[in-house]
Amino acid sequence: MRAALYEGPGNIRVEQVPDPEIMLDTDALVRVTHAAISGNDLWSYRGYGQRSPGSRIGREFIGVVEEVGDEVRAVRPGDAVIAPSAFSDGTCEYCLRGLHTSCVDGGVWAEPGHDGGQGEAVRVPHADGTLVVVPRSLAGSWARLLPLSDVLPAGHHAAVSAGVGYRKTVAVVGDGAVGLSAVLASRRLGADRVILLGHHPERLETAQSLGVTEAVYGRGDDTIEQFMSVSGGADCVLECVGAQSALDAAIKIAKDGAAIGYVGTPHLVEGLDLELLFGRNIRLAGGASPARAYLPELLADVLSGTIDASGLFELSVPLQDVADGYVAMDTRKALKVHIEV
Amino acid sequence: MRAALYEGPGNIRVEQVPDPEIMLDTDALVRVTHAAISGNDLWSYRGYGQRSPGSRIGREFIGVVEEVGDEVRAVRPGDAVIAPSAFSDGTCEYCLRGLHTSCVDGGVWAEPGHDGGQGEAVRVPHADGTLVVVPRSLAGSWARLLPLSDVLPAGHHAAVSAGVGYRKTVAVVGDGAVGLSAVLASRRLGADRVILLGHHPERLETAQSLGVTEAVYGRGDDTIEQFMSVSGGADCVLECVGAQSALDAAIKIAKDGAAIGYVGTPHLVEGLDLELLFGRNIRLAGGASPARAYLPELLADVLSGTIDASGLFELSVPLQDVADGYVAMDTRKALKVHIEV
Repeated sequence: MRAALYEGPGNIRVEQVPDPEIMLDTDALVRVTHAAISGNDLWSYRGYGQRSPGSRIGREFIGVVEEVGDEVRAVRPGDAVIAPSAFSDGTCEYCLRGLHTSCVDGGVWAEPGHDGGQGEAVRVPHADGTLVVVPRSLAGSWARLLPLSDVLPAGHHAAVSAGVGYRKTVAVVGDGAVGLSAVLASRRLGADRVILLGHHPERLETAQSLGVTEAVYGRGDDTIEQFMSVSGGADCVLECVGAQSALDAAIKIAKDGAAIGYVGTPHLVEGLDLELLFGRNIRLAGGASPARAYLPELLADVLSGTIDASGLFELSVPLQDVADGYVAMDTRKALKVHIEV
Repeated sequence: MRAALYEGPGNIRVEQVPDPEIMLDTDALVRVTHAAISGNDLWSYRGYGQRSPGSRIGREFIGVVEEVGDEVRAVRPGDAVIAPSAFSDGTCEYCLRGLHTSCVDGGVWAEPGHDGGQGEAVRVPHADGTLVVVPRSLAGSWARLLPLSDVLPAGHHAAVSAGVGYRKTVAVVGDGAVGLSAVLASRRLGADRVILLGHHPERLETAQSLGVTEAVYGRGDDTIEQFMSVSGGADCVLECVGAQSALDAAIKIAKDGAAIGYVGTPHLVEGLDLELLFGRNIRLAGGASPARAYLPELLADVLSGTIDASGLFELSVPLQDVADGYVAMDTRKALKVHIEV
């Protein structure tokens, strides 16, 4: 089969790789139908992180089950499924508590020993604890389903972690796909005011379609001042970037006593100065999003039509041309890239 | 009148100072009857922070109202009162939300321009928003009341911030007066297992009287391992020290998804590495304790006899000998020192 391989910074190629096989009775083989390029993939592409040349890449995909191990019960061949960004056994203490990213036997796609999502097929460990079956009526709606694999649960995790709810003033730092998903998630959770801080005014229309009420564009202290003058500070700040500048901004625009929900994987982040938080009682919550935990409730709202993040995809490429998708993400020509497999 | 003055590291003297006077209609004059030495005072004594030589010191006191400004309604001359560790107007957005430490017109005792608690009298700004009247039946019980001014609300703030409740396994890092107060607060909030990490086995009996269920003594990774072997990790970690080693330990002993409630003012703390928290979804909440917000409910429990932290006081000194009290705190000969004024 064919799969995208990371060959070093700026170098993604599609090559022949061995077909995956069922290795454990709890595995499933999933034929990937649609994948996406995630922010984490992009960090790798840009040379950050520890990905080895020649390794698989991709952590967002949906597909169809082809084969299951003897112990798999919840999915059957032919099922359309969503794969959350991490696999998890579904039975350990952490999974039972809804923190599937801390599963004692879990992991992340494309880490050593595991398939990446940007390829024709994936061996899915712990199929029962990982995959979510798509209701038949949605099976053809890839653009509404694919955000459920990572960005939509990540935005939701930021919002939940920051305590977003009715009558809260929410600031979303970052207008990437996770940031815009956080806008959608915040409105879904009842926030009546969601203010976006971003660098991409060309994405405003998409942001508005997802429910943003105001937007402030720019970098540095001018942007902070502008934010404060329109809002007086945020009750909940959703940090959806993972860079030092975003974290600094998040702290500055938070009201005293506010919560920062951070879901941007920390990159280029120096140590956090606790004294900035202490006197102001600013809370910090979030981290790696346990997408699997949130999938049922988010899928229910996708099914009912309440939420629709399909507008995040600005470019579709066939798997063979995945490198073009990375270029489009890297140069910010596309907010989110869909890979047709 | 006489008051303790900070004259530099290791140097506290009692001197004559001008009598305080009502300056604003919202002020009260309080004759201090009992004061205590706080952890913050001790940091100053040890030379950390920015206290100027010749400045007042002390932020924990109770007393009797002597005189009130024309606009003061809630307290009257003759009332026995508790002063929380910060003063606050009681009417701003933050006070109304229970975050009195962020009061737009508030402050802390003994900061420039304000009296310290270790002296014969204090001008209390915003008397209505600051002071809490002591029920008559408790007026003589200084040892049960004095912890309400700072350490008990601080321990409670750590517990609330970390989400302590029924069936939670709680770790308290630090067996100073705030840590032991956090033990009491955690049991009060329903935790059935409260494990103390400390350096002072001689305080175990006091800790047990406040409700601790287990204790681990020592420094470094052995202590962490011992903690993990008895508990498997904590759901709620209450960091009651404010030093880097305590914060490091707090992160290590937290279960994934746990919350750290930190109330130790950060001293000697380097930057916090967010990557230690991100993958494990460890939350960080807390900060300066809004003692005033918690006083009514804690006072109610003191009044009913449900809680009693009087065992924290191991030494009483007259105001004239307050320097001896600092020595006893500094050399860890006394857990908490009471100053009879």
